[in-house]
Amino acid sequence: MPAPPAATPSVKNAALDALAAFLGPRLNRSQSDRDLHGRSEAHFSSMPPDAVAYPETTAEVARIVQICAEAGLPMIGWGTGTSLEGHALAPRGGVTVDFTRMDKVLQVLPEDMVAVIQPGVTREALNTELRATGLFFPVDPGANASLGGMASTRASGTTAVRYGTMRNNVLGLEVVLADGRVIRTGTRAPKSSTGYDLTGLFVGAEGTLGLITELTLKLHGQPEAVSAAVCAFDDMAGAVDAVIATIQSGIPMARIEFVDQATATAFNTLSQAGWPDAPHLMVEFHGSPAGVKEQAARFGEIAADFGGSGFRWATRPEERNALWAMRHNAYRTMLTAYPGSAPITTDICVPISRLAEAVEETAAEIAASGIPGPIVGHVGDGNFHALLLPKAGDPAQWETAQKLAANMAERALRLGGTVSGEHGIGMGKTKYMQAEHGDAWAVMGAIKSALDPEGLMNPGKLVPGN
Amino acid sequence: MPAPPAATPSVKNAALDALAAFLGPRLNRSQSDRDLHGRSEAHFSSMPPDAVAYPETTAEVARIVQICAEAGLPMIGWGTGTSLEGHALAPRGGVTVDFTRMDKVLQVLPEDMVAVIQPGVTREALNTELRATGLFFPVDPGANASLGGMASTRASGTTAVRYGTMRNNVLGLEVVLADGRVIRTGTRAPKSSTGYDLTGLFVGAEGTLGLITELTLKLHGQPEAVSAAVCAFDDMAGAVDAVIATIQSGIPMARIEFVDQATATAFNTLSQAGWPDAPHLMVEFHGSPAGVKEQAARFGEIAADFGGSGFRWATRPEERNALWAMRHNAYRTMLTAYPGSAPITTDICVPISRLAEAVEETAAEIAASGIPGPIVGHVGDGNFHALLLPKAGDPAQWETAQKLAANMAERALRLGGTVSGEHGIGMGKTKYMQAEHGDAWAVMGAIKSALDPEGLMNPGKLVPGN
Repeated sequence: MPAPPAATPSVKNAALDALAAFLGPRLNRSQSDRDLHGRSEAHFSSMPPDAVAYPETTAEVARIVQICAEAGLPMIGWGTGTSLEGHALAPRGGVTVDFTRMDKVLQVLPEDMVAVIQPGVTREALNTELRATGLFFPVDPGANASLGGMASTRASGTTAVRYGTMRNNVLGLEVVLADGRVIRTGTRAPKSSTGYDLTGLFVGAEGTLGLITELTLKLHGQPEAVSAAVCAFDDMAGAVDAVIATIQSGIPMARIEFVDQATATAFNTLSQAGWPDAPHLMVEFHGSPAGVKEQAARFGEIAADFGGSGFRWATRPEERNALWAMRHNAYRTMLTAYPGSAPITTDICVPISRLAEAVEETAAEIAASGIPGPIVGHVGDGNFHALLLPKAGDPAQWETAQKLAANMAERALRLGGTVSGEHGIGMGKTKYMQAEHGDAWAVMGAIKSALDPEGLMNPGKLVPGN
Repeated sequence: MPAPPAATPSVKNAALDALAAFLGPRLNRSQSDRDLHGRSEAHFSSMPPDAVAYPETTAEVARIVQICAEAGLPMIGWGTGTSLEGHALAPRGGVTVDFTRMDKVLQVLPEDMVAVIQPGVTREALNTELRATGLFFPVDPGANASLGGMASTRASGTTAVRYGTMRNNVLGLEVVLADGRVIRTGTRAPKSSTGYDLTGLFVGAEGTLGLITELTLKLHGQPEAVSAAVCAFDDMAGAVDAVIATIQSGIPMARIEFVDQATATAFNTLSQAGWPDAPHLMVEFHGSPAGVKEQAARFGEIAADFGGSGFRWATRPEERNALWAMRHNAYRTMLTAYPGSAPITTDICVPISRLAEAVEETAAEIAASGIPGPIVGHVGDGNFHALLLPKAGDPAQWETAQKLAANMAERALRLGGTVSGEHGIGMGKTKYMQAEHGDAWAVMGAIKSALDPEGLMNPGKLVPGN
C-alpha cells in the first residue's frame, strides 16, 4: 500500500482547529508536548505529531477519528511511550491520541475473573485496584505500560511462560475503526467459536487497524503460595539446558528468566546483590504451599544436574519483590553501568530446542565485537534480549551494533523462530517482515487496506509500504 | 457481500474436466460420493458438491484452487464431516476438497513440544503416534475429528478448561488462499509479536478465507498422574455452583463436565453405569501424584459443600477411559434412548457467573416444552449443549425445538455470552451474527472480501451475505 498523499497545510490546520474547538485545552499543539510524543525509549530520531489529543470517552475518540479521517490526517495511539520499536512515533505527523485521561477501571467481575478497563490504565494501577479481590492480571513486560499499549504490541514478559501473552489474556475489545465506527469484539464468556477472531487481530496490530478504547481482560487467582529462587551456573549453556529440561519436565514455572554474567556483575555493583559473577537463572513458582514446594524441589534437582549452584530462595513478598525489581530494572542498571552509551535493545524468539545455539552464537558474536551487550531473557518462551551499548557519538560502534542486531534477527529466522518475541515491529523491524512472513505479509497488507484504505492509522509501521 | 454469479454449466464442466485430467480417479463425480459430502451429522438437508477432490499435496490443493477460481467454482474443505452446523455442505455446489489422503504426521519435535501435520490427521491418530514421546495433543471435542477441521471450527471440548481451545494450540499454519497462493503463518517459537495474528485469523474461519494444508501444533507433556471422578448432586443448581466455586478456587482442573439427570439415566440403561438418577459432575486432574491427590481432595471438599455425594474415583487408565467414553458417547447414547427422533444439537457459552441461570432457564423451558432435551456441557468454560429430540416427522415438535434452540442463543447474548462456544456458525447460526457482533460482523465481511473477493471459499457460511 503506497503512502497516502499528505493533507495540504490548509486542510490540516482546519482539522486541527476543529479538534481544538471540540476538545478545548485537551488538544495540545505546543512544541514541548509534540516533542514529548515524538520520542520513544528507543534509538529513533524525533518524529513529533502536529498535535496531541487527550480524549476522555470513546465517543470523543470516534469524533477525533472522524475529523482526522476527513482531513487525511494520520492518527497514532499513545499509552505510556514505553514501547521499544518506535511504535508511537509520528513519521508523517498527524494527531497523537494520548489515552492518559482514559484510565478508569470500569468493572471488576470477580466471579467471571474479568476486568473491563479503559486503555490508559497501567498494569500496576490495575493490580493495585485488584489487590482486595484475590485476583491479579499477570502479564508483566517490566515497564509500567498502559494496557491499551500492551494489547497493541502483544506484550508478554516474565510471566508469559505460565499465563500467556496479551493474546491469551484479552477476552474482548472496543475499537474505533479508521472511519470512526465503534465496534466490540469478544464477550465475557471464556471462549467462543462465532466467527473470525477479531480480538486476536487487533491485539498486536500496533494501532494500524484502529484505536482500542476499552479492554475486557482475563484475570487470574492470586496464588496461595509463591516461591522464588536464583541460582548460578558455570556457563550459559548449562543455564539454557536447565531451562529446556525444566520446560520439558512439565513443571508449571510461573517465571524462568536468564541473566548473563555481565548483568549479574552490574547487579552486584549497583544493588549489592552479592551474586557470583556468573550466568544465573531466576525462577518463580505459583500454587498451593505443597505444590510450590514440590515444584521448587524438582526444579532444584534439574538445575543441579546442569551445574546450578548457590541457590537462594525468597518466599516473603518483600524479598521476592526485591529480586524481581532487580530483574525489571536490568535495563536501567546496565545503562548506569555503561554511562555514555547509545543503547539498542532488541529481542528475538526461537524454538526451545534452538535456544542454547541462539544464545551462544549471539553472545560469542557480541563478545567478539568489543561492544558491551548483556543478554537477559524470558527463556522459558525461547525469548531473549540483547542490550547493545555502543558508545554515543561513535558511528563505527553504532554501525557494528546495528549489524549485531540484524544478525540476531537473521539468526532467529534461520533457527525457525521470529524476529521479535515481544517488542514488536513498529518502525524498527519492518525490514525483516518479508523474510519472516513471505506472502503472508502481503495478506497483512490486504487486511490493512480493507480496514484502513487511506492508511491513516499509525502509518509507517508494521505493514508493507505503510 | 452478494453471492457471486454461478459459473455457467459449460465453464463448470470444463473446470471439472480439467480437475479430472489433473487428479485422475482422485476427482470423484459419482452421485454416491457427492451425496456423502452433501450431508452432515446435523439436521441440514442434503447439499452435495459437483465433485469431490482428494489431493495428496499442498501443490495439488493450490492447483485445484487455481482451476476452481478461474471457473468461479466454490471450494469447500472436508475433514471427517463431524461438524454440527453444516460447515462442510455445498449449498452452491462446487468442489469439496476432502483431506482424507493428506493424513501424515510430518514431524514430531519433542524438544520443542511441537508436531507438524497434514490437515487430514485425526486427533486420535495423532495421539497414537505421540504415545511413545511422552507428549500428547489435548484438544478433545469428542468426535475423532480431523485436526484441519478442528482448527477451522476452533474446536475445544472437555479439556479446554485446562489446555485451551484450538486457538491456543495451533502455533502455525500453511494455507492455500482463494487465488492459489500458499502462505505460512506463525513459527515454531512459542510466541511472536511480528504483525497480525494470521494464525488466529484462520483458526475458526471455517474455511471461508482459505484451505489449511498444514498445521504446527503445540503439544503437552503426558501428565505423570491422572485421576478422574464422578459425583452426583441433588439438583442442577448445586452442580453448577460447585463448578463456579471450583474454577474460582484456582484448582487446575483438566476436565469438569456436567451431565444432567436424563443423560445419567440413559447411561444407566445403556451402559449399566449404576449411577444415581441425578445430575452429575465428571472431573479429571492432571499433575504429579501428590499434586493430583491434593487437587482431588480440595475438589471433594468444594463439591460436598454444594451437596455432591456418591464420589467414585477412577485412577487406572481403563477405568478412566470407560468413564470418559461414556461422556463422549453421550450424544449416541441419547439417540439410542430416544429412537425415532430428529436431533438438533446446539451449544452456547456464557460468563461463569451466569452459568447457573443459563442452565436452569434452559432446562426449565425444555421441560415445559415436552420435548426430550438432555443438557451436558463443558461447564468449566461456561459452555453447555442441549440435544433436542423432537419426534421425526412431527412438524410441530420440530418447530418447538427450533424455537428452544433460538431461545438458547438469545439467552446467551442476554447474559453477556456467545451463541456458540465450540460448534461454530456454519450455515446454522449466521442468523445470530448481527445480534452478537453488531458492526464487527461487517468487519469480518470486509476481511473476507479482501482475501476472497469472488466469495468462492466455503460460500453460504459465517460471513454477511455470503
